[in-house]
Amino acid sequence: MFRDCLENVRQKTPLIHNITNYVTVNDCANVLLACGGSPIMADDEAEVEAITSICGGLNLNIGTLNTRTIEAMFLAGHKANALDHPIILDPVGAGASSLRTETAKRLVKDLNLTVIRGNISEIKTLATGSGTTKGVDADLADQVTEENLDQMIAFAKAYAKETGAIIAITGAIDLIADAKHAYVIRNGVAMLSKITGSGCMLSAMTAAYITANQENPLEAVATSVCAMGLCGEQAFAKMQQNQVGSGSFRTYLIDAIDLLDGETLEAGKRYEMR
Amino acid sequence: MFRDCLENVRQKTPLIHNITNYVTVNDCANVLLACGGSPIMADDEAEVEAITSICGGLNLNIGTLNTRTIEAMFLAGHKANALDHPIILDPVGAGASSLRTETAKRLVKDLNLTVIRGNISEIKTLATGSGTTKGVDADLADQVTEENLDQMIAFAKAYAKETGAIIAITGAIDLIADAKHAYVIRNGVAMLSKITGSGCMLSAMTAAYITANQENPLEAVATSVCAMGLCGEQAFAKMQQNQVGSGSFRTYLIDAIDLLDGETLEAGKRYEMR
Amino acid sequence: MFRDCLENVRQKTPLIHNITNYVTVNDCANVLLACGGSPIMADDEAEVEAITSICGGLNLNIGTLNTRTIEAMFLAGHKANALDHPIILDPVGAGASSLRTETAKRLVKDLNLTVIRGNISEIKTLATGSGTTKGVDADLADQVTEENLDQMIAFAKAYAKETGAIIAITGAIDLIADAKHAYVIRNGVAMLSKITGSGCMLSAMTAAYITANQENPLEAVATSVCAMGLCGEQAFAKMQQNQVGSGSFRTYLIDAIDLLDGETLEAGKRYEMR
Repeated sequence: MFRDCLENVRQKTPLIHNITNYVTVNDCANVLLACGGSPIMADDEAEVEAITSICGGLNLNIGTLNTRTIEAMFLAGHKANALDHPIILDPVGAGASSLRTETAKRLVKDLNLTVIRGNISEIKTLATGSGTTKGVDADLADQVTEENLDQMIAFAKAYAKETGAIIAITGAIDLIADAKHAYVIRNGVAMLSKITGSGCMLSAMTAAYITANQENPLEAVATSVCAMGLCGEQAFAKMQQNQVGSGSFRTYLIDAIDLLDGETLEAGKRYEMR
Repeated sequence: MFRDCLENVRQKTPLIHNITNYVTVNDCANVLLACGGSPIMADDEAEVEAITSICGGLNLNIGTLNTRTIEAMFLAGHKANALDHPIILDPVGAGASSLRTETAKRLVKDLNLTVIRGNISEIKTLATGSGTTKGVDADLADQVTEENLDQMIAFAKAYAKETGAIIAITGAIDLIADAKHAYVIRNGVAMLSKITGSGCMLSAMTAAYITANQENPLEAVATSVCAMGLCGEQAFAKMQQNQVGSGSFRTYLIDAIDLLDGETLEAGKRYEMR
Repeated sequence: MFRDCLENVRQKTPLIHNITNYVTVNDCANVLLACGGSPIMADDEAEVEAITSICGGLNLNIGTLNTRTIEAMFLAGHKANALDHPIILDPVGAGASSLRTETAKRLVKDLNLTVIRGNISEIKTLATGSGTTKGVDADLADQVTEENLDQMIAFAKAYAKETGAIIAITGAIDLIADAKHAYVIRNGVAMLSKITGSGCMLSAMTAAYITANQENPLEAVATSVCAMGLCGEQAFAKMQQNQVGSGSFRTYLIDAIDLLDGETLEAGKRYEMR
């Protein structure tokens, strides 16, 4: 039950170590608190192993990566693997530079990742080298649509099988897949792409969900993705009602994450299993 | 027409590479999205040339500069020049330390900049070495006033001629000048200086405007400055009406940028040509 | 009078140099502006001494510290001491890694600090090595309660005597102590710990208070702590009234800091001297 996944986060208050970009880091911290987790950010090589050790899960995000923080990601990742902590990778902008593409590929290869979450262009870049990119946003040419859905589900399952990680491809339609099962999620609104960091926030929140629900990681990821989509819908409705814009939408989104309960999530989730 | 400049941003969705400070970077990203552009932040020497290559314009902001990011600014700047991408420089805090002053001067000297946007103390520091500074804010002694307006316009035009860049001096009165023409803009409210980053946000937005309006850069800068001032006026009116403070003002400002249309801008712009 | 401390900040507009983490830096800058101060952030070794020299006070915060910024903290700190500028240290996450613990201890030992402000786990880690830690939050086992209040006051005074700094331990009950006197403050709400950075914001604001009230540092710290607590109460009341969440709470908190006046503070402060 999605409700159980959500309530586990609120009851266990998972402590999440984040090595993430400086653009959206504040939103990630606030979303972790709002969903019921607890954030700590640390990216120096001299302390990332210690910080990972006191946490329950690790969130690696390569936006604004640099030589120093890349090394820290590997140190923290290996420590998290040694401790059996779940790790999520957000390959922000993979495809936009070879530094990002190669770093993300190395993280996928060297670490035992629980989840890889990105837009379709980022995931295609990692899986096949063929994704196009428009900076940190997905290219329209790559998009998951009703027409290519079967093919994209097969792609996600195949990449999950190859990597051993749950693959979360988010966009207008979200696909969450392991090697055998896929959730096709239709929560969410286009407005989420009009603020920076909605993907980063989702990855941070998903880190809390997989850490608090380790016996059930696929459902935990699906719950987190549904929850973010549903909160986006609520924030958008309020934005339109109040005739305001993207600044208020961002505030309403975090409000919605803070206020979301299991009952509302169960009533609002929109997905099918494939 | 200012309306055309604004609509070009919304239609072309210019992708802007930002090397900027970590204080206001999130606001810069959200303002770029709100005005119709698309942001990417990247500051590692190993990827800035690649990132600039996939973008349309470059925003260089020296707040919280450091040895690593200074080098990245030059690499990205030379690449942008080679590709004929417009560049805007925001010399945050020039005059506050010799590192900032010297870095900004070197950027002006080595790169072919499209726009230099700062407060009067920062611009005077670069042009004449005589600006005083109060941290990242302009010193009252330097201020553009109705009394010294003729002299300041001549100063801006002369510095534009010297550098080949459009000079944008923003404050209570804004001056936007190339060697021959100047816009004197009277939009805006003092409240904009009660939140951090209103200058940084303006520079980021201006990067989108000059990228989407390359045949018409002077008007593009003037449009961006009027737009930010007008949105500040709208946000301030709403703040007073709701009897709230600077936290809400910041949200309302981004809302206003998101909602601004060409018609409202044409009706609200307040400037004269000199 | 607390009123005088508050009004001194608004009248003197103290310029504060911040070397702080990238998670909450934007909130710190906005809170400094809202309370009447003026922020500048700079962390490069090549400029921190120059920046400190033009400022009135220094705020050192070790969240997301790294090798480069640690060195900058010592350079800025020694310069601030040479100039007799007040310094506040926020030992974010001391206890969570030896890098943080050792860096904080060295800062306490090498610098002449005016204030050390942290949660009880952080302060116990520094004073006795015995604090437990839950990342950047205090551990329940360490908490200041009505039952251990006498003992904790004695602890705070003893550590103040040892370090020569005012010790500010904030949590459900706040203790502000020098060697002889302690304020026990009961303003505040638990909601403040549901957003990231309320501690960082308090340290930044306190930097402004001690800089504008150098003849009266203990009362200045107490005023800042009461002010933040009272603003939290106002923000929480508004959040509940509007049935919104933590995103709005953060905005309301900054609004409240911006709007706070001496009369409201005097009416709302809740403390006793011990």
